[in-house]
Amino acid sequence: MNRVFIYDTTLRDGTQGEGISLSVEDKVKIAQRLDRLGVAYIEGGWPSSNPKDMEFFRRAQKLPWKNAKIAAFGSTCRPGSMACDDPNLKAIVESGAPVATIFGKTWDFHVTTALKTTLEENLRLIHDSVTFLKESGMEVIFDAEHFYDGYAANPEYAKEAILTAEKAGADWVCLCDTNGGTLPQEILAVTQEIVFLARVPIGLHVHNDGDLAVANSLMGVMAGARQIQGTINGYGERCGNANLCSIIPNVQVKMKMDCIPGESLAHLTDTAHYIAEIANQTLRNDMPYVGRSAFAHKGGMHVSALLKDAQTYEHVTPETVGNQRRILVSELSGMSNVIYKAKELGLDISHQNPQARQIIDNIKELENQGYQFEGAEASFELMLRRAFDQEPEPFVLDAIKLMIEKRSNAEFTSEATIKLRIGDQVVHTAAEGNGPVNAVDNALRKALGTAYPFLQSCHLSDYKVRVLDEKNATGSPVRVLIETRDAHDTWSTVGVSTNIIEASWEALRDSFLYGWLQQQKKGDTDPVG
Amino acid sequence: MNRVFIYDTTLRDGTQGEGISLSVEDKVKIAQRLDRLGVAYIEGGWPSSNPKDMEFFRRAQKLPWKNAKIAAFGSTCRPGSMACDDPNLKAIVESGAPVATIFGKTWDFHVTTALKTTLEENLRLIHDSVTFLKESGMEVIFDAEHFYDGYAANPEYAKEAILTAEKAGADWVCLCDTNGGTLPQEILAVTQEIVFLARVPIGLHVHNDGDLAVANSLMGVMAGARQIQGTINGYGERCGNANLCSIIPNVQVKMKMDCIPGESLAHLTDTAHYIAEIANQTLRNDMPYVGRSAFAHKGGMHVSALLKDAQTYEHVTPETVGNQRRILVSELSGMSNVIYKAKELGLDISHQNPQARQIIDNIKELENQGYQFEGAEASFELMLRRAFDQEPEPFVLDAIKLMIEKRSNAEFTSEATIKLRIGDQVVHTAAEGNGPVNAVDNALRKALGTAYPFLQSCHLSDYKVRVLDEKNATGSPVRVLIETRDAHDTWSTVGVSTNIIEASWEALRDSFLYGWLQQQKKGDTDPVG
Repeated sequence: MNRVFIYDTTLRDGTQGEGISLSVEDKVKIAQRLDRLGVAYIEGGWPSSNPKDMEFFRRAQKLPWKNAKIAAFGSTCRPGSMACDDPNLKAIVESGAPVATIFGKTWDFHVTTALKTTLEENLRLIHDSVTFLKESGMEVIFDAEHFYDGYAANPEYAKEAILTAEKAGADWVCLCDTNGGTLPQEILAVTQEIVFLARVPIGLHVHNDGDLAVANSLMGVMAGARQIQGTINGYGERCGNANLCSIIPNVQVKMKMDCIPGESLAHLTDTAHYIAEIANQTLRNDMPYVGRSAFAHKGGMHVSALLKDAQTYEHVTPETVGNQRRILVSELSGMSNVIYKAKELGLDISHQNPQARQIIDNIKELENQGYQFEGAEASFELMLRRAFDQEPEPFVLDAIKLMIEKRSNAEFTSEATIKLRIGDQVVHTAAEGNGPVNAVDNALRKALGTAYPFLQSCHLSDYKVRVLDEKNATGSPVRVLIETRDAHDTWSTVGVSTNIIEASWEALRDSFLYGWLQQQKKGDTDPVG
Repeated sequence: MNRVFIYDTTLRDGTQGEGISLSVEDKVKIAQRLDRLGVAYIEGGWPSSNPKDMEFFRRAQKLPWKNAKIAAFGSTCRPGSMACDDPNLKAIVESGAPVATIFGKTWDFHVTTALKTTLEENLRLIHDSVTFLKESGMEVIFDAEHFYDGYAANPEYAKEAILTAEKAGADWVCLCDTNGGTLPQEILAVTQEIVFLARVPIGLHVHNDGDLAVANSLMGVMAGARQIQGTINGYGERCGNANLCSIIPNVQVKMKMDCIPGESLAHLTDTAHYIAEIANQTLRNDMPYVGRSAFAHKGGMHVSALLKDAQTYEHVTPETVGNQRRILVSELSGMSNVIYKAKELGLDISHQNPQARQIIDNIKELENQGYQFEGAEASFELMLRRAFDQEPEPFVLDAIKLMIEKRSNAEFTSEATIKLRIGDQVVHTAAEGNGPVNAVDNALRKALGTAYPFLQSCHLSDYKVRVLDEKNATGSPVRVLIETRDAHDTWSTVGVSTNIIEASWEALRDSFLYGWLQQQKKGDTDPVG
């Protein structure tokens, strides 16, 4: 079989990650997106553990699923009790999901220490629980918890446990590296043995505590396993679960096996970002395949080679996974980066053009002052436009004032006033904030918001301050980086000054100007009169 | 040989990561910390590429190195030129570093497409460059760029290229997965072949584009490679380099080979955090081994099993790598730290004392707000003194006001006024600054300087600003850290607020109060009347 079944547990194991919490509505949205991506199984939750998960299963029954089967999660029944009386197993059946995934112990130490029962009783729990669920007409996946640790401690017992599940009729046995510490070479050897031993198809469920979860999943596939359990963006307890956003392209593109429909792969990046957004997590820029920096090139030599052939410094083309190439501009980079960037903007520039040399000198001078354009592409574009006399001017600033005050033990207060002109109209307004930069931000929005209603859909999503040349202490220059988002786009701007208000102002101004430029391209930026 | 030599390239390849930029001072600090951790090689930079890197090598020559050798990086000489005339190679020799690491092409496609020369000429470049550096008396590491891709395309040529480096006298050949897309199984097979073929010891330098860099490095070690190149926290271009913070414990604890001195492993976590702090990067909570969540347990079932035996849900004990479990124990250790510190200050406190519990609760609340006392022991001492009603009060603040203004294209101006009482005397004064915090700093010094002349010998030596919870953008809280020095001593203070002026004020105030306390101990702090 050349197919690897992708089993997503973002909605269950993913939510055990620190800081991740999903409403029922969130879960439904994520599940629908996963189905569109084309995973084979979506684990919706643990129906007996909370009403939220039960509600998800109720809603899931009424929705059309194109690619995925919904799975309900739980554990084998309790020592000394009958499977058919177990509220946890009954809730799985009542969930209406077509698939049941239950975990059971396979590590002898865990049976005696955590479960506090005998090795024989544990085998009975596995057998009876699987049998009960099969008799209820469900597809049953048996998650062999701590299998690799169990195998290392007592291989005979670990094998007996999974063969018990097989005998009871389980459709899949998934080998878990629950503590996430097993090495790839061990995963490969042990999985190979199990694939030969078992008649039931084998899957893997591994955690990332050794920074090896993706590799360990691939080792499983190499050994003959045909189901991989993991989460989008690797969310999960401690160091996370196996990251499906890396596993899927590795298996599909590199190992040339099917796991999601071919046309879906180009939606991997937007799926990762969408789910991060719903989970209220900032997606790491350096995420393989789907991160903003995954195809970002900084070294000048790399860029000059990329211009000759992208394959020189890219392992796959970014479009394969729906991502894009980015060329960063920094002190490490040369002329090639600037030319590449200018051409992207449709500006007429070449190695021979004296303007190119001037712009490079200008960048070097600005970088000497502490500007950093690699994280601030919008400011870089504005700087290029200024060099080509194409600076946008939707408003002219007359004055900004800020008053910050503290009286004896009272709180600090911050108030900003701003006066600017939009065409012939003079706007003069004021706002408070929970700090001075926030007050300036609020005042600027207030001043521009009526004329430029698009600002309402823009929000600042990141604000970074870096003190440069720290030895000058409070007199040091600071660099401010601001990230802005609207419904479609994200852009970053930079400001540098010894005055943090000025640096923030520059970045705020550029954020607005760039947003305005994008709107202008769409033809709807004339000030509302 | 049971030793794996760790080669750190945080200072060179790490700085190619997006958003990472290090001053010479930063580089020196990081290198000293790496040396303490016990890595075998520290790549300092590319001496010919910029004056900053050259300055690093000048400083490095004068410093004592306990464990590490400093390496200077560069490439083979240019096609058509002589190695002895190559400015890049000459800069490596002039750097004074004992080790030269040069990369050369081993992928035929890259030779003809990027380097635009013949396959024969490329072999000459490798041979002559290595020979030149060896004749200059340096240890030479040859980084075989794109080796795995080169081997896949034209194995004979790739092998010929590295054997050329070996013949020319290279001390090491490092096989690079430059584009970071090779699978572990391929790394294992190819590296095994090369280890059998070559007489020179083999190393690996891999990138993380497939989310496999840690596993690929371990595969290299499995195959017999004995040098691993990587970066702290996996910093590096695109998706980063191989993460040494995961590789070191995997190799040392799991594969039971030596790579850093045994006693150093317990400093891994603080090293990772320290370097993240200097690079102004937020360390991911879910980082294996060193992240704040790496040993944090959320699932109730996990916690209850952990209480029975920690091994149930932990692949290694957190203390092995200097990290901690985030239930139970952290609280106890927090208590011990507080008691230790209080006793040092002569404050009466014990485990039985209800005040200890209250102080711990207070610290937790402050840490929730974003305070961090690790880097601010002076503020910690003042906080303890406040809890014991021993707060020093050399002055009472009545008011601070700040006015910041910009008119059309003029510069921003900043003016602070301050009113305070020293005993019966009222001081009301004002000062300007090159930014608002600098203006407050100047005004405070002016207000206190006459009464407390010791202030003249204190100067601020560091000022750091960190935006916390960046998603709230300009409304986010910020943490300010200030370092102050006088002739004898250095102390650090902290402030947190959504208002950067307030946060800075807190840190400035504590800086003065702590300085005053030290003077008082010497008996010369009465206000000069």
